[in-house]
Amino acid sequence: MGDVNELILSKAGSNVELIPEIAKHLISSGGKRLRPMLTLACADMFGYEGKGHVTLAASVEFMHTATLLHDDVVDESDMRRGKLAARKLWGNQASVLVGDYLLGQAFKMMVDVGSLEALRILSTASAVIAEGEVLQLGAAKNIATSEADYLRVIEAKTAALFAAAAEVGPVIAGQGEAMKQAARSYGMELGYAFQLVDDALDYGGSSADLGKDVGDDFREGKITLPVVLAIARGTDADRAFWKRCLEGEDIADGDLEQAIELLKKYDALAETVERARAYGGNALKALETLPAGPHNDALADAVAFCISRVS
Amino acid sequence: MGDVNELILSKAGSNVELIPEIAKHLISSGGKRLRPMLTLACADMFGYEGKGHVTLAASVEFMHTATLLHDDVVDESDMRRGKLAARKLWGNQASVLVGDYLLGQAFKMMVDVGSLEALRILSTASAVIAEGEVLQLGAAKNIATSEADYLRVIEAKTAALFAAAAEVGPVIAGQGEAMKQAARSYGMELGYAFQLVDDALDYGGSSADLGKDVGDDFREGKITLPVVLAIARGTDADRAFWKRCLEGEDIADGDLEQAIELLKKYDALAETVERARAYGGNALKALETLPAGPHNDALADAVAFCISRVS
Repeated sequence: MGDVNELILSKAGSNVELIPEIAKHLISSGGKRLRPMLTLACADMFGYEGKGHVTLAASVEFMHTATLLHDDVVDESDMRRGKLAARKLWGNQASVLVGDYLLGQAFKMMVDVGSLEALRILSTASAVIAEGEVLQLGAAKNIATSEADYLRVIEAKTAALFAAAAEVGPVIAGQGEAMKQAARSYGMELGYAFQLVDDALDYGGSSADLGKDVGDDFREGKITLPVVLAIARGTDADRAFWKRCLEGEDIADGDLEQAIELLKKYDALAETVERARAYGGNALKALETLPAGPHNDALADAVAFCISRVS
Repeated sequence: MGDVNELILSKAGSNVELIPEIAKHLISSGGKRLRPMLTLACADMFGYEGKGHVTLAASVEFMHTATLLHDDVVDESDMRRGKLAARKLWGNQASVLVGDYLLGQAFKMMVDVGSLEALRILSTASAVIAEGEVLQLGAAKNIATSEADYLRVIEAKTAALFAAAAEVGPVIAGQGEAMKQAARSYGMELGYAFQLVDDALDYGGSSADLGKDVGDDFREGKITLPVVLAIARGTDADRAFWKRCLEGEDIADGDLEQAIELLKKYDALAETVERARAYGGNALKALETLPAGPHNDALADAVAFCISRVS
């Protein structure tokens, strides 16, 4: 990961001063680097000896960082990873453009690696992520969003990049379909688990503690699984409450507490975490097909880490 | 070009309804398709017989369309090609995300073609364009912008894509360095000419007629070559005027007319057009290295067309 971090910082450079300034703000603000780790482990586990996986891992992180920059603009978010969002410090305009720059750099780096198959996988993920975000725009502020709609959104906006990040490991290591499919499946299931845990954490997790970063999704009118479950199980009065807050964005003091109360009442947070655990179990299952050893263990630890964030 | 248009419309599709809606709004609103035409002509002139140039041409147009969507958000523009800008119809959020989707699709299409060299050229252009836009953000609202600063911006934000669009023609047709360099040089020079003409047209062209689309750059505080030239030649009072309007965005009735008056007084529009002609001449010079015939003639016509828009 040291090589990946070094490459990330060097490729975030540009003669245009604002670009490294914004990129480094985000890159050095302590993301978990989960996605690039998947790429490295999924190549190293096959004894891959080149440097291509480092470059692909850095591209994956750039794609992710570009998405974060654009997401914050789209969601009008003020905070990201406990710091002011880039758009609050440098404006929406710079966030959009620096995101575009990082995406361009990501593709240049993939081209350097020279694997058309890895390029196909990652460029497809890039289009799918954007599709997922557009889909989420449509689902936002619509309390009629079904569980299936919601899963379609998170598959595209989150799980697809986890899947691609893992799949390019065996690709660069010259493996066949079975290994590529297993790595992809591991990444996809982990991605689902990761997003569900994130969604539960946004309401304080299964313990529903009111931490400092709680309630962003609620305030932005985002319909996530806990809400979908609570709405499906709620009374007409509950639905009216969700409709006012999420569709109408008419949120008063005490509404977030009321929302969390409803989520607890209908077991919506606990059940979201339960589903995350199930996806995590599927990810572990996929690992059984991949070679055993320390990299396989690290990938299993990643699953445990994702789930542990919430419990 | 019929094949390119067909491919563009089919690849702008998505199950997510909003995507084809927005993409087609922009794609069918009568862009000049100048960039994809360069790719086709620069491949066909070497007797290229495959279909890869059509796919590359469509990718180039997608990259351009994605840039337009993001530009309108960044510039807060209301109009694009005489229609309401996508961001006014569907919002900034959808414009950012659909731009991202089109960029992802563009890379997928390039991967389909399978030329790593074309991928390298176009992904580099993609990063350079974004760099140019960030540079322009810094230059906007700064009347101290020099002519060199300005040329650096337009090389990156406009000429680089023209150059890449032309260069991938001989690349896909399997030509050597000399032909690639000539095509690139043709595209680059044409790109400069194109942008300078655009800048002059934004103030009514050399005749300085006040058409309906005049004054956007002025209202957005953009520093373009006509303004750079007029500021360099103006009095202190003139500088105060430009400073108030472009840096302070304090624009009153009659200010645009006053700006055009100053541009005429200091020959700034005529000289901008003169420079465009010189770049156009360089483009024609580059064509001498490329094979003669109907495609070479079409590329020469493209130069004449660009210049004729303003005179």
